[in-house]
Parts: sequence; structure tokens; C-alpha cells
Amino acid sequence: MATIAPSRRVRRTPFSAGVEAAGVKGYTVYNRMLLPTVFESITADYRHLKDHVQVWDVAVERQVEVRGPDAARLMQMLTPRDLRGMLPGQCYYVPMVDETGGMLNDPVAVKLAEDRYWISIADSDLLLWVKAVALGFRLDVLVDEPDVSPLAVQGPKADDLMARVFGEEIRHVRFFRFGWFDFQGRSLAIARSGYSKQGGFEIYVDGTDIGMPLWDALFAAGEDLGVRAGCPNLIERIEGGLLSYGNDMTRDNTPHEAGLGKFCNTHTAVGCIGRDALLRVAKEGPVQQIRPIAIGGDIPPCDRVWPLMAGGKRVGQVTSAARSPDFGVNVAIGMVRMTHWDAGTVLEVETPDGMRPATVQDKFWI
Amino acid sequence: MATIAPSRRVRRTPFSAGVEAAGVKGYTVYNRMLLPTVFESITADYRHLKDHVQVWDVAVERQVEVRGPDAARLMQMLTPRDLRGMLPGQCYYVPMVDETGGMLNDPVAVKLAEDRYWISIADSDLLLWVKAVALGFRLDVLVDEPDVSPLAVQGPKADDLMARVFGEEIRHVRFFRFGWFDFQGRSLAIARSGYSKQGGFEIYVDGTDIGMPLWDALFAAGEDLGVRAGCPNLIERIEGGLLSYGNDMTRDNTPHEAGLGKFCNTHTAVGCIGRDALLRVAKEGPVQQIRPIAIGGDIPPCDRVWPLMAGGKRVGQVTSAARSPDFGVNVAIGMVRMTHWDAGTVLEVETPDGMRPATVQDKFWI
Repeated sequence: MATIAPSRRVRRTPFSAGVEAAGVKGYTVYNRMLLPTVFESITADYRHLKDHVQVWDVAVERQVEVRGPDAARLMQMLTPRDLRGMLPGQCYYVPMVDETGGMLNDPVAVKLAEDRYWISIADSDLLLWVKAVALGFRLDVLVDEPDVSPLAVQGPKADDLMARVFGEEIRHVRFFRFGWFDFQGRSLAIARSGYSKQGGFEIYVDGTDIGMPLWDALFAAGEDLGVRAGCPNLIERIEGGLLSYGNDMTRDNTPHEAGLGKFCNTHTAVGCIGRDALLRVAKEGPVQQIRPIAIGGDIPPCDRVWPLMAGGKRVGQVTSAARSPDFGVNVAIGMVRMTHWDAGTVLEVETPDGMRPATVQDKFWI
Repeated sequence: MATIAPSRRVRRTPFSAGVEAAGVKGYTVYNRMLLPTVFESITADYRHLKDHVQVWDVAVERQVEVRGPDAARLMQMLTPRDLRGMLPGQCYYVPMVDETGGMLNDPVAVKLAEDRYWISIADSDLLLWVKAVALGFRLDVLVDEPDVSPLAVQGPKADDLMARVFGEEIRHVRFFRFGWFDFQGRSLAIARSGYSKQGGFEIYVDGTDIGMPLWDALFAAGEDLGVRAGCPNLIERIEGGLLSYGNDMTRDNTPHEAGLGKFCNTHTAVGCIGRDALLRVAKEGPVQQIRPIAIGGDIPPCDRVWPLMAGGKRVGQVTSAARSPDFGVNVAIGMVRMTHWDAGTVLEVETPDGMRPATVQDKFWI
């Protein structure tokens, strides 16, 4: 693969100096910002993530801040998940949809106060959608991108490392909750969350100026824990069934197709822009859906849609795939039509290197 | 610089196979799609572009299609440029702004019919903004991204090459006009436009399936013209003063700051969402503005904002810079405060490699 060209448009992050010093070997671009993809090797990074603790520059999870008297109303317009029970201090995974029920993003919403939210976004300029919705519906709300950059601490030793920097209290933060913790005199929201299944936290670093001081503090405190710079790991996230917006689902898909029906309360989410469209889907069910897929043989990196075939007919597609050392198989995420989505169904997948056997699994590798 | 990781999310284009076969050495990501940045070397590509003819994969210029009875009204809501005189067959460079006059994109609008436009976008998900505006203001219009991918033919021999593939009639297409031309039985819009000052065309390739056939036809027809695969060239576009959204201006800037006041008819662009905010700017003038800057000494690649300093005070920033072989100087684009924007003003620019002398120019290098 070719190298990535330097330009201001592909934004650096508050942690880029640390990432470079740690010897980053690969990047992707996510929300027009650099996201590391590999340090030692994807396999070595994977092993280390499952055994130790890593610090991840996930500043690409940009925040859309929604603030003002109509903040709660606007948030409910964006998602079919019922937000009425959401309390300050909670994080919700919220599929966001357009008026046809097509997914625009799958962010985590962070409720800071009754009238203030951060939407921690996946890879699309959701800010433009939210701003225009606020404008078009004349809502009394401010929408902007603040200087807030998430830094994740992930892996089985994440609690130990975080306790050394933020105090023992951090251990009591529950899953998808956040608390306020002090660093160099600044109060930071820290949530128990992250894009891995190995446990850990996301620190919402409020201000570019404290990015590198916090990075350095975590590495200084974690030396004997074997802390390393890491990043979302392709193999581990596929094993864990963590979807990637733009890879595994796009604007073409409903949340139900993405297997996110459990995050949709279509009947009670009154005000959601896509509600009418999704009421029908919720009733009939989707005709295709995300499934874990095991692929045999050798496979190249998955950089495009790989058609899933049955008897010469296309019945779906694979969009993420990688060799799993722990499970001894190629783990993959695909979208499969209902005629062929039952666990155990044997299909063929068309990779650029040729056809490979593919089997629908009943669950992800967790 | 590190390599770019393969994933479906960073989309390939209909021309990727051709780009790879031509030996692309560097990419950037633009509108979540691969954009080549270098083939032989940036300097060699520059020389060739100025002397011969190149075929550019600019599929990243995604189209936002706007169609229906309210299409013209919606288009005028998006931009402060007065579109009343725009005819089918014309292309307009249209700054697009939010309700504060902040730039959201600087696309080329292509008027296909009275009720149908393509917006050929720079690097932001303008689709989400346009969709939400249409929704919020209840406009009777369809907004979507069609399977249309621009392929540019640029350089002094572009007319000759294009005439061989599309016929002599192509020579009569005027600047920022387009006509309909046939390729393998399909009618394609071809405009005299492109992101260089060397002349040429942009072909709106309607359908992924004819991407590689057209690519191959252009190379077959142009062998004796020395046709090569190319891409927007960093040096040439800075020399020519072609701005890059996300580099030289962002949502923080008004069109007037970007030097695009001549494309704003703020008094007559009735209906434009940002009109109220821009009326004030149009009256008072901006306090900072884009300027060509010549930088002395050796400079690194510009991958972040470089502050422009005068007497220890920050008076602006450089956001694009490169060594120009033809002009024997580092050509650059910066935003300078009015106190220091007069041509001939000598400043200092803070690069990661140290301070360099910088002089405000009266015009770009054309």
C-alpha cells in the first residue's frame, strides 16, 4: 500500500507527537484526522492488547456538542433509541438515522447535563446533519465541535493503570457511565467504554494543551505494567463483533440490518426523524442482517466489498475480515440475506484472490 | 510518513485499478475515498503536467444530486452566489456557507436542467447538510449521491487527447461550460474545468462500469502525446492560487476571508442561509484574508498550521507550502490579518524546522 501524503486537511491530533515517538507504522484517515492502525504488527498489537494495557489516540472520535433548552428534543430527533430515561453521567450507543431510516453514524452519546450532550462520532460529518436539523426545525440549541479529544486506555490492566493516575475511585465507574476526574487541575469526563472487548476507559481530553502531558503521565505510571501505544485492533474488533460505520454498514442500511434493533425503541422514540420509515422495518424485520462469518483458506486484506455467493447467486457481502490467531480461523463481518443467514449455512466468498469457503456463525468470537 | 491501512471505509474508485497499474506512490483520503497525490515524484509530475497531458482520478469529487421542483430554491439557500442567471450547461464555483457565513465546502455546481443539479464537492460531507436543509425546510426535492465519478484530463495537450476520444466538437466547450458527449453508447457531461491552471476537462463518468474502459481508451489514444496518470499537484495548485478546503480555509472562515468575495452576491442572493451574517462581512470587509506568501530557506512538508509572526506577535498562518522549481522559491498560501496583508510585507513563519522569512505577494504565480 502507498504512503499517506502530509497535509493540514488530514488533521493531526493532540497526541500525534506521542504516537510518532512510539513508532506508528500505519494510519487510516477517520473524520479527516489521523488514526493509527498498527504499531509493532497487527498480530503483535492484538496479543499485547489482550494481555496488558494500551493507550490509544482516538481523537478521531470527534465530539458534536449539543447545548441549550432544546438539546434533549434535538437528540431524540436524531435517533430511534428512546432517550427519555437517560441520565447525566450515562453514555448511550445511539444509531443515528435519516428520514428513510438509513444510518448516518453510530456514535456514543454522552449526557453531561440535562441540556448538554456530546455525540462521540464514528466516521461521517454528523456535525453538518445536526447543525442543519437544528436550523431547519428552528431549535433553541447550540451545535459545535469542541476541542475535546478522546484518549482510550484499553486492556485487562486498564483499571490498574488508570487508578495510578486518577485515583482508586476510577475503579467504581460502571460500564457506559462516566465520572469527573481531575488531571493537572482540569476536570475530565472519563467513561468506562472503548472500541475493544478487553475492558477499559475513554478519557474525554478537554483541551489540546493537556493532551501530551496526560499521554506522558499514563506512560510514566504504567511502565511496569508493560503499557504501550496501541489503536483499535482489526482482529480483536471483528472477533468481538464491534461494527465499523463505513465498513460494515453505511447510509444504505437500517439499524435493524446492522443488528442494532435492540437499540431502537421505534414505538416510543417519538420525534425521531426516521421513525415512520423504521416502524415498518421494526414490524416486518429486515431482509438482510449483519452476521459473523468464518472464512477458510488464506485471504488478502479486505479493502472492498467481497460478495457472498450461494449456488452462483449473490446473497450478501463481507466487509471486514482478518486472520485470528486465538481462534485459528479468518474472522469476518458480513451482511447476509435472510434466505441464507442461519448459523451453519455454508457459502462462498469472492475475494480478489479467489473464492473461499464461508460459514455463517451463531455468535461472534467472544 | 506511515502507510495507509486498507479498509472498505476508505473507498476505492472506478479508476483504482488503473491508478495502481500506473504505480501510484502516495495517497490522501478525501471524502472517505482514495485520492492519489504522487506518481513519479511531485516535482516530476509537476513538470509533466505543465508540458504534456495527464489523466486524473478525481472520483473523490463526489456529486450531491439535487432534483425536483424546489431544486433551484435549495441551491440558492446553500450559497451567497446569485444563481438566478445560471443556465443549464453552466458550471459555477459556489462557496457554501452555514447560518453564520462559515464555509462548509467550495464545490462546483453543475446545472443539468432547470430542476436538476450536481454539486461536485470538496472535502466535507456536504450531502448531510443538504439533506437536512431539504428536510427541515420541507422542500420538494430529492438529494442523493449518484454513481458519478469525475475523471480529469489536464495539461496543455488535453484538447488534442480529448478530441481523439470524443471528437473535434470537444474543443468548442468553453471554460466552466459543459456539453454532452458519447462514450460507448453512454452520454457523459464533460466540462472545461479542473483543479489546475494548465487547462483541460472534467468528465463526469456516470456509472462505475465504464470507468476503466474510459481510462484505457484515453491512454490508448494518447500514447504519442506522452499521456500519463497524474493527480492534483501540490506545487502547481499553490502557484495557481487554487485553494484547498480543509487546508486553506475551514468552517471557521467566511468566503470573504478566503478571497472568494467575488463569488458572493450577498445583496441579491435572497434565500441564502448565511446571508444575514455575510451582509455584515460584505459591508465591513474581512479582518484577515488569503494571501500568496513566498517563503525563504528550506521547508518541510506542511502538515499543520504554521503561524505567521511579526515582531513576536501572531498575525496569520500558512496552510499550504511547497518548493517551486519554476519560480525558485517556496510558494505558499496563508491567511494574514489586515494589519500585515499588504504586498511586500515581510513576516516570519514558524515551521517545525524553525523560523523562515516570509513575504506577502501581490499575486499568485501565474
